[in-house]
Amino acid sequence: MNIHGGYYGDNNVVDYSVNINPLGLSSHIRQAIIDSIDEIDKYPEIKGTTTRNAIAEYLHIDYNKIIMGNGASELIYLYARAIKPKKVLIIEPTFNEYRRAFELVGSDIYDYMLDSNNDFIFNVDEFATMINKVNPDVVVLCNPNNPTGKLIDEKELLDIIEIIRNNNSFLFIDESFIEFSDRESIIYKSDYDNILSLRSMTKYYAIPGIRIGYAVSNNKVINKMEEYKEPWTMNTFALNIVPKIIQDIEFHHKISKWITTERDYMYSQLSKINNITVYKSYTNFFLCKLKYFSGNMLNLQLLEKNMYIRVCENFQSLDDRFIRIAIKKHEDNEKLINVLKNIID
Amino acid sequence: MNIHGGYYGDNNVVDYSVNINPLGLSSHIRQAIIDSIDEIDKYPEIKGTTTRNAIAEYLHIDYNKIIMGNGASELIYLYARAIKPKKVLIIEPTFNEYRRAFELVGSDIYDYMLDSNNDFIFNVDEFATMINKVNPDVVVLCNPNNPTGKLIDEKELLDIIEIIRNNNSFLFIDESFIEFSDRESIIYKSDYDNILSLRSMTKYYAIPGIRIGYAVSNNKVINKMEEYKEPWTMNTFALNIVPKIIQDIEFHHKISKWITTERDYMYSQLSKINNITVYKSYTNFFLCKLKYFSGNMLNLQLLEKNMYIRVCENFQSLDDRFIRIAIKKHEDNEKLINVLKNIID
Repeated sequence: MNIHGGYYGDNNVVDYSVNINPLGLSSHIRQAIIDSIDEIDKYPEIKGTTTRNAIAEYLHIDYNKIIMGNGASELIYLYARAIKPKKVLIIEPTFNEYRRAFELVGSDIYDYMLDSNNDFIFNVDEFATMINKVNPDVVVLCNPNNPTGKLIDEKELLDIIEIIRNNNSFLFIDESFIEFSDRESIIYKSDYDNILSLRSMTKYYAIPGIRIGYAVSNNKVINKMEEYKEPWTMNTFALNIVPKIIQDIEFHHKISKWITTERDYMYSQLSKINNITVYKSYTNFFLCKLKYFSGNMLNLQLLEKNMYIRVCENFQSLDDRFIRIAIKKHEDNEKLINVLKNIID
Repeated sequence: MNIHGGYYGDNNVVDYSVNINPLGLSSHIRQAIIDSIDEIDKYPEIKGTTTRNAIAEYLHIDYNKIIMGNGASELIYLYARAIKPKKVLIIEPTFNEYRRAFELVGSDIYDYMLDSNNDFIFNVDEFATMINKVNPDVVVLCNPNNPTGKLIDEKELLDIIEIIRNNNSFLFIDESFIEFSDRESIIYKSDYDNILSLRSMTKYYAIPGIRIGYAVSNNKVINKMEEYKEPWTMNTFALNIVPKIIQDIEFHHKISKWITTERDYMYSQLSKINNITVYKSYTNFFLCKLKYFSGNMLNLQLLEKNMYIRVCENFQSLDDRFIRIAIKKHEDNEKLINVLKNIID
């Protein structure tokens, strides 16, 4: 059983540990993959130029401000390698790969730790004091955040960017879950002189097996990353399906309708269960805190009902009482709520 | 037109620049890909464990001595990052990615340059002197070599490994073209204490679009690489097709028959053309030297006949008179020979 979640091998188990849109693939994907089979005996474009163009057009952003990756994870590590920042300040608790990527290139890591007892609220003044003290080269923020589901709203985020700018620092912002919120990427509100926005296509499009991510930043940062980028990291299927899925309006409507309805449903239901604290979420999952229970113990009981959740013990400052529950289709959500009520309430 | 070759977009052009088996895919691939579509909404195994097991079994090598890569290129860069050797000695001319990978981690690069005027012969005494002088941490050898097609035979290779061992150095050997020769990987003849053998599945299996490579070395080196490996670099299709294709005996027989026949045919035919020197090859391509011509000029004329070759000007010590010609199906080989005779002879 892999601690990262999303690997639960048994197909009878509903895996609430994995943050993937449960409605399945865009209807265009299957055909695009089958059509691509005849191309796998050719090298994929070395920098994914055609695909990058399609994304540029979709986002209305200059091609030179975009870089493609073999999943967003390639771009986290590539950014770290290309920039090699001396000091990195990470807003925690968050996705662990940022820390690993920067540690591997020898960065000193500092944390701005948001407090679970204070609803993980980001305090701008506290942050300003900290950034003045630490003087980080790079600040890492996941927004909306994994695993807390919290969103820093636009006004506050622009303040944060200004503070970072005034300290000659740079914001590495992971917006991989932004499409599940009703917000727009910050790239449309800020010039790019001191931010990079990372996007994964894995979660929203339900395609972790294909590996597609991209990042948007200024030409200087993108060029520096290109200088370090390894050749042919993206496979033919990844490159070919992007143009088909990003324009799939029907898919976007379907997801939007599902997430709005089911997030409200889950929040209200989880809130009603005693002995569990649910944090408000702008993503497709909820972080919860169990009052008397270990998440691992809970999982043992859930597995008897063919269910599985993510225990958050390996996130900074969290422990095994914290669990992350992905929002699934309505019948699965209902099923989980009923089982949780029976076990915990 | 990409200088790396293999990107010639126009499907009417026969692209002799690309070193890919032209007989096409194993008959199992199409179905394996279609069967995998239902799995792309799940994360691929983070380290490709199942696939790694299949390769271990096929090679009769301990699982812990194998690491999988998103193409062999991931493993070149990963090895460089994990080991960060101070001094690297590269046997040139060869594939350019080794140099780039080690330069990116700050290694000092030294060359043992084989001479085109001396048939690129590897002189063991000369090498021994050089290695004593340079004291490299790592020696890089591509065998059979791209772009020369030359093979260092087993006896000599074992001598070379002994010299490297006596200098407390390590051999990074790229055997990505070994399956086109009639030889076995050196991993069966050496213990692994000071070698890593790199293998690409791209060329032999004609699947550059899928990205699969692996490496075999001792546990210590493999563990060090795992320490630096990025998560989820391999896609679901890559992981799923490996077990199907490595055991495809019919495919192996077909390739073996084709390469033996067509390599002999091409060598004898190219040898007969005046004003061109052909180097003996153990791979699926031939390096040739044009007497009076630039390869770029030749390409202009070839393109009129819908053909395209690799000009080798960006390999160390080679210039635009050197061209690399991939061996294709018989009718394509015949066609190229006739056109070359008309242009050059």
